[in-house]
Amino acid sequence: MVRHHRARFTVKGICALSDIGTLRTQIKEFSPSYVCVVDETRAQELRSHLPRRVKLFMGRSGLREFSALSSDVSLMAIAGISCLEPLMINIRNTKRIALANKESIVAAGSLVFALARRARTEIIPVDSEINALFQLISRSDDYQRVYLTASGGALLNYTRKDLRRVNVGHVLNHPTWKMGKRVTVDSATLVNKGFEVVETHCFFNVPYDKIRIVLHRESMIHAWVECGDGTFFACMYPPDMRMPLSYALGYPGRVSVAKGLDIHKNFSFSFQPLDVRRFPLLTLILDAARRADNGLVVLNACDEVAIRYFLEKRVKFTDIFKAMEYVYCHYPRKRVASIDDVYAWDAWSREKTTEFLEALN
Amino acid sequence: MVRHHRARFTVKGICALSDIGTLRTQIKEFSPSYVCVVDETRAQELRSHLPRRVKLFMGRSGLREFSALSSDVSLMAIAGISCLEPLMINIRNTKRIALANKESIVAAGSLVFALARRARTEIIPVDSEINALFQLISRSDDYQRVYLTASGGALLNYTRKDLRRVNVGHVLNHPTWKMGKRVTVDSATLVNKGFEVVETHCFFNVPYDKIRIVLHRESMIHAWVECGDGTFFACMYPPDMRMPLSYALGYPGRVSVAKGLDIHKNFSFSFQPLDVRRFPLLTLILDAARRADNGLVVLNACDEVAIRYFLEKRVKFTDIFKAMEYVYCHYPRKRVASIDDVYAWDAWSREKTTEFLEALN
Repeated sequence: MVRHHRARFTVKGICALSDIGTLRTQIKEFSPSYVCVVDETRAQELRSHLPRRVKLFMGRSGLREFSALSSDVSLMAIAGISCLEPLMINIRNTKRIALANKESIVAAGSLVFALARRARTEIIPVDSEINALFQLISRSDDYQRVYLTASGGALLNYTRKDLRRVNVGHVLNHPTWKMGKRVTVDSATLVNKGFEVVETHCFFNVPYDKIRIVLHRESMIHAWVECGDGTFFACMYPPDMRMPLSYALGYPGRVSVAKGLDIHKNFSFSFQPLDVRRFPLLTLILDAARRADNGLVVLNACDEVAIRYFLEKRVKFTDIFKAMEYVYCHYPRKRVASIDDVYAWDAWSREKTTEFLEALN
Repeated sequence: MVRHHRARFTVKGICALSDIGTLRTQIKEFSPSYVCVVDETRAQELRSHLPRRVKLFMGRSGLREFSALSSDVSLMAIAGISCLEPLMINIRNTKRIALANKESIVAAGSLVFALARRARTEIIPVDSEINALFQLISRSDDYQRVYLTASGGALLNYTRKDLRRVNVGHVLNHPTWKMGKRVTVDSATLVNKGFEVVETHCFFNVPYDKIRIVLHRESMIHAWVECGDGTFFACMYPPDMRMPLSYALGYPGRVSVAKGLDIHKNFSFSFQPLDVRRFPLLTLILDAARRADNGLVVLNACDEVAIRYFLEKRVKFTDIFKAMEYVYCHYPRKRVASIDDVYAWDAWSREKTTEFLEALN
């Protein structure tokens, strides 16, 4: 996207977790003044290859300094809850954030948006459903209900019995999107859709009872809004992450990168009501969302750990469900008042989940 | 719609062509101060049944006086080109018109909108596709292209050979909408869609090469706009005229009357590219539209006459095509500068078409 619109963008800084190969190519192409590598060993390796004008930040503390650099727009795509701290620092130092991280909103949405309001920093969601809603709602906020579409993931047509025999290959076979492994598993359990319901609530102040989910296998329509008179407006683009990414980076303009819908072909969209009973983890997430306590922090951490165990073939697919139900029944309900609270409950849940999963073996 | 929202609306006047039975019921229910009956014989019949406080207008001249009454909103649903004169009078005397007439825009769009701009009168389209576009564009005008959907009418899957054997019953069997006879025939020939392209151009100043047609059998999505980055926004409501009617009457608010989409069912939408070669009359209308002369006036009148002959079983379905091609080849190309020009070319075309069709028998 930046590659195709060099006149519009100057790249001030680039951050990587550990992939210094890609980073070196990007440094050559975009000549950033600042670079950050979170993995310190890798950072040391990169150091000698860097042009002298480039300043290098290293490790977690380096990431904090890097996040404090001022900018017009920053793209935050750090995976998992570890995005939260740099996000909070970055909110104070940039004008607009294209946010491709879900967990920080799920675990700490109210803290993030309270700070963004104080700092007058815009947060543009990159997640396609939330991005589509952002686009719909920024056109007019006269809606009464919002609808998120769900592809239903890889296991939509599996019975509860089938689920016991599900392996990693089955789950990672997503019908429409190419994504990271955790979010692909989250799509199959609909935990991902539950997280998007939370995002919708946090981004747009929509009450939970006004948010609906509709199954839509083709992932072309990402969201709808329904007005009081029964008129619907839908936002549609092909399932290609470059679409919401370039929207978020180019906002409020529109910068085109990917190919849109080809209307010279036959195509069709199908929609089905969602049978919530088939997705107990979605019910769990929505219940935690309404509690508005540390439940979402706990469930997010548990989900991540349990999925890692499943992907490493150390537990069965259905053990993810068991772990989630276990920690949800056992966490002490507390208010989340700070980032420290988030990280503390996140750690508590990881420990509890690990104990539980290890005991299964 | 007015029935269900009596507190919002006071009915000042009601006009009918000749159906005084319905009109009497409406007078009882809505107590208008003014009534107009265009058919003078019927008007005389009604007179003795009217409460004394109701003023009655009669005939064409009565319609002109009735159209000159001041109002906040008026709904114009007179059929055919005879709507044009009362529309032009009404534009000067009302604040907003819910327009359910296509022919006046097709034949005299530039005159109508020039007057509406001078008089600062809003015109809200009731025609569902144009209404949907109006809703989409009033939310944001950052589109690059607009798409009208077409059900394809009753004859979509007929071959050119089949068309020769088409009878009135076949043509009036529209898949989704219940409408008047002429517009149902116009849906089968796609003349109706051509007229909507002209309406789109006139209402929103969209250049003709930015307007596309997509076949969509279910008539749920009425229009789309496409932004520069390939994102689409669609406007969707069930094929029920009460939806656009209540939108146009309630604008800028939204007054709900009809049932919206039931998302508790499975449903699907299909789209197909349009094979323009199968619809020669659409090509003709679009060609006339680009000429921007009296061609559309002439074609509209010819179409109406030819359809009447077809519905009266005096000519074959394919004779409609022949008549249209004939008058389009033989009309003297002139600028349309006034309403008088419109009516003169309308009369010329009716005479020419009648001559042509009579000669076929």
